[in-house]
Amino acid sequence: MEVRLKELSARLAVPLRGDGEAVVSRVAQLAKADSRSLTFLGDARYRDYLPETRAGAVVLTEKDAALAKVPVLISENPYLTYARAARILHPDAPIAGGVHPSAVVDPRARIDPSAWIGPTAVVEAGAVVEARVFVGPGCILGEGVCVGEDSRLVARVTLCAGTVVGKRALMHPGAVIGREGFGFARDGALWVRIPQIGRAVLGDDVEIGANTSVDRGAIEDTVIGNGVKLDNHIQIGHNVVIGENTAIAANAGISGSTRIGRNCTIAGAVGMAGHLEIGDDVHFTGMAMVTRSFTQAGSYSSGIPAMPSGDWRRNVARFRHLDELARRVKQLEAAIEAMNAKKGQGES
Amino acid sequence: MEVRLKELSARLAVPLRGDGEAVVSRVAQLAKADSRSLTFLGDARYRDYLPETRAGAVVLTEKDAALAKVPVLISENPYLTYARAARILHPDAPIAGGVHPSAVVDPRARIDPSAWIGPTAVVEAGAVVEARVFVGPGCILGEGVCVGEDSRLVARVTLCAGTVVGKRALMHPGAVIGREGFGFARDGALWVRIPQIGRAVLGDDVEIGANTSVDRGAIEDTVIGNGVKLDNHIQIGHNVVIGENTAIAANAGISGSTRIGRNCTIAGAVGMAGHLEIGDDVHFTGMAMVTRSFTQAGSYSSGIPAMPSGDWRRNVARFRHLDELARRVKQLEAAIEAMNAKKGQGES
Amino acid sequence: MEVRLKELSARLAVPLRGDGEAVVSRVAQLAKADSRSLTFLGDARYRDYLPETRAGAVVLTEKDAALAKVPVLISENPYLTYARAARILHPDAPIAGGVHPSAVVDPRARIDPSAWIGPTAVVEAGAVVEARVFVGPGCILGEGVCVGEDSRLVARVTLCAGTVVGKRALMHPGAVIGREGFGFARDGALWVRIPQIGRAVLGDDVEIGANTSVDRGAIEDTVIGNGVKLDNHIQIGHNVVIGENTAIAANAGISGSTRIGRNCTIAGAVGMAGHLEIGDDVHFTGMAMVTRSFTQAGSYSSGIPAMPSGDWRRNVARFRHLDELARRVKQLEAAIEAMNAKKGQGES
Repeated sequence: MEVRLKELSARLAVPLRGDGEAVVSRVAQLAKADSRSLTFLGDARYRDYLPETRAGAVVLTEKDAALAKVPVLISENPYLTYARAARILHPDAPIAGGVHPSAVVDPRARIDPSAWIGPTAVVEAGAVVEARVFVGPGCILGEGVCVGEDSRLVARVTLCAGTVVGKRALMHPGAVIGREGFGFARDGALWVRIPQIGRAVLGDDVEIGANTSVDRGAIEDTVIGNGVKLDNHIQIGHNVVIGENTAIAANAGISGSTRIGRNCTIAGAVGMAGHLEIGDDVHFTGMAMVTRSFTQAGSYSSGIPAMPSGDWRRNVARFRHLDELARRVKQLEAAIEAMNAKKGQGES
Repeated sequence: MEVRLKELSARLAVPLRGDGEAVVSRVAQLAKADSRSLTFLGDARYRDYLPETRAGAVVLTEKDAALAKVPVLISENPYLTYARAARILHPDAPIAGGVHPSAVVDPRARIDPSAWIGPTAVVEAGAVVEARVFVGPGCILGEGVCVGEDSRLVARVTLCAGTVVGKRALMHPGAVIGREGFGFARDGALWVRIPQIGRAVLGDDVEIGANTSVDRGAIEDTVIGNGVKLDNHIQIGHNVVIGENTAIAANAGISGSTRIGRNCTIAGAVGMAGHLEIGDDVHFTGMAMVTRSFTQAGSYSSGIPAMPSGDWRRNVARFRHLDELARRVKQLEAAIEAMNAKKGQGES
Repeated sequence: MEVRLKELSARLAVPLRGDGEAVVSRVAQLAKADSRSLTFLGDARYRDYLPETRAGAVVLTEKDAALAKVPVLISENPYLTYARAARILHPDAPIAGGVHPSAVVDPRARIDPSAWIGPTAVVEAGAVVEARVFVGPGCILGEGVCVGEDSRLVARVTLCAGTVVGKRALMHPGAVIGREGFGFARDGALWVRIPQIGRAVLGDDVEIGANTSVDRGAIEDTVIGNGVKLDNHIQIGHNVVIGENTAIAANAGISGSTRIGRNCTIAGAVGMAGHLEIGDDVHFTGMAMVTRSFTQAGSYSSGIPAMPSGDWRRNVARFRHLDELARRVKQLEAAIEAMNAKKGQGES
């Protein structure tokens, strides 16, 4: 989308230094931006590119603004301003309301006329699709599902019966929301499946990545708070509760009934046991193994970073006997203390 | 479903204490149950709720039965009795036989008249769908697939050509069964794909979670035993064999040709190398890294639980030199032994 | 497919010892092969089966050739020769060009007449499907997607708008290519989504496993090189670049902007942080946690292999204090040095 710099400056509420009539129509990397591109300085290492950039405009801090010879949008947080500008220049495609003839919509579903139901999508009885919702090709909305205004189901999203999705959701292909959770009682060696009658309830502004699963609750609901962002391949077990604006990176897994606070960041491939309590502003680094509750804000980690395989084998062999090693150190300390004591006596 | 307590007592074969004419119609949590709800005491911590519960009935042990003022179903294993009651109160929806007009069924497929083929499902030539099978929207049954009686493919399940599914399976959206496994021979730097001509064969009463994959065998079959339960996002490599009633939690991965025994439990995100032999009644805790065979029954673990990131960094730095540390301890022991020996000589 | 041994010998360019008129029609395991089966010796442990095999033919090294009483194809690399033979005996099904009536193809898409668009597939405007491409049931090709000659999308593959796939790709069910990556700028506690305008670009001869995701780039493209093989459940973040012939096993995750060289092997469930540089011929063993760049060719590892849970608990408890243990060892060394120094003085 073509936007004049003076208009961009106004919409972003940041000052412009340079020609307000100039037009940009896309974003680009600093080193590759042309006169139609907006760019930004995201990493100080690239500052050397600034004097030579031919970008249509650059988002910079006040401090860096003098380094560029092209128009500058001045921001205290260039990355955030860039993000907002990018959304203006690259808006989501507008949605034309309607139902594709190949879609299968139960007459007992309620579809807002401004919503779009794409090719081969299936919408079952009692489902409610609110205004300006985009239901992409191959999506399946089970019985009684509700999807709030302006949500976008890109393609092949499955919402199982009873799932509730808030406003402005963004859901990617392969997402499965509201599957019956993994709950069994043991009958000797056999497993007796327990019906899962809770729902999966997602707040507003939630993002769900590709091939990510959120299981429905066993009795009560699984709850994903407003503004929660889930990357790809994430498993959310039944009755998990995730607080507002918590973000979880790909391949993480949260076991059943764990409660996670607000504004947490959970890096890739983190695994959490079930029935834990995680506080607000808790951060886990990649591949952390979370086996107990962490209620205090802070950063937590685990795992052994990769090293040459030979070193690893030697160190791991020692780890198998670490408890014994610690006992030996204690014996050594006792032996030395005894020797010193004896020597002390000898000297006295 | 509404059920009188006396009927529930009879069907569950457990004694009832209280009004047999009272009716329950759903399950609920102990603290929230109303007069139409059945509940149970699953955790001793909630025993304080018992005297005040207004539930229609509670499943309790003989020992706890006196604590509740409402009708009680008495069971040695309240959780199991509750699970069975929940299945009576919340039965799977009945299946009306037929083929949705939007489904694409090859005329050479054989569909039992009591089975249901849902909207946009695809059933290819030679597939066999037995009595009372539910094939949900968007499912794909490749050539020659067989699905046994009373199985339920919730939605968007993909069964690749030749896959065999037993009776009473429950398969969730995104499951992919019978994909050609990951098998290559190296030709210098290039990879030459090896055709995978084995099948994926699933026994009876198998559950397959959302976005879980079971690869077909290279030459022989991949075999999932009766009663095996697989959670979401699990990878089962080619030629894996899993024994009866083994349960595997989400995000686990089992590499090719590994054989797992019966009645094992494999927790979330466990990874197993290929060509291993795992015995019966073997249990792995979450995120365990399984690099060798474990044929003895028992519980096995690995991984470093999360700790504050600062502590972790310091400990990990030491782990990199753990072998050296162990050698230093050995030297210290030798030094002290030498000193004691010398001192002994001095004293003698 | 039936093939005479003399023809197989010629096509594989390996010598035949035995009756060239004999016919084989399939591959089989050494112990189970019958007179119509080709087999090979892949593991020296199975050499004892050779004298008794009734196979139609065996692929063997020159050294082993005399052990079998049946026809032998002689190869320096029996596994590679077997792989090639298997592809001759079990060829991919031929593709009949056309569009299934239930497929939804935008008139602005260009489909080569020799390509097949299967049942319920969706092809959007501007997509290009080249010669002999197989688009299986339930696949979705977004706007402007290009798929090169002879590629095979087995079923239910989703290619998001703009994705480019080279020639001879093999893509499995549940694969999601070109999803908008996980990119946000923080606005206080809120996350502002950054439009992802790069593409996912896959070279020739790429394989993508079931339920694997490759995100599109933020500004520049995500690039998967020629001959790259990705197993199931793999996450490839935005702007990742993977060099030619690198193979990645199931459940691995590569975070955004990491660059991986050529001919690497990355085992199952490996996790890589973002913005790393991995050289050519680098190999990571299973579950390795990659938190820094590795530019030197070699093998790298991490993780603690599973052990009995009791041992593990004791060792892990010590790991929490490993830094302290190392300090204590240092103090012990100092104490002994001091004692030896004093003793030395005493003795002098």
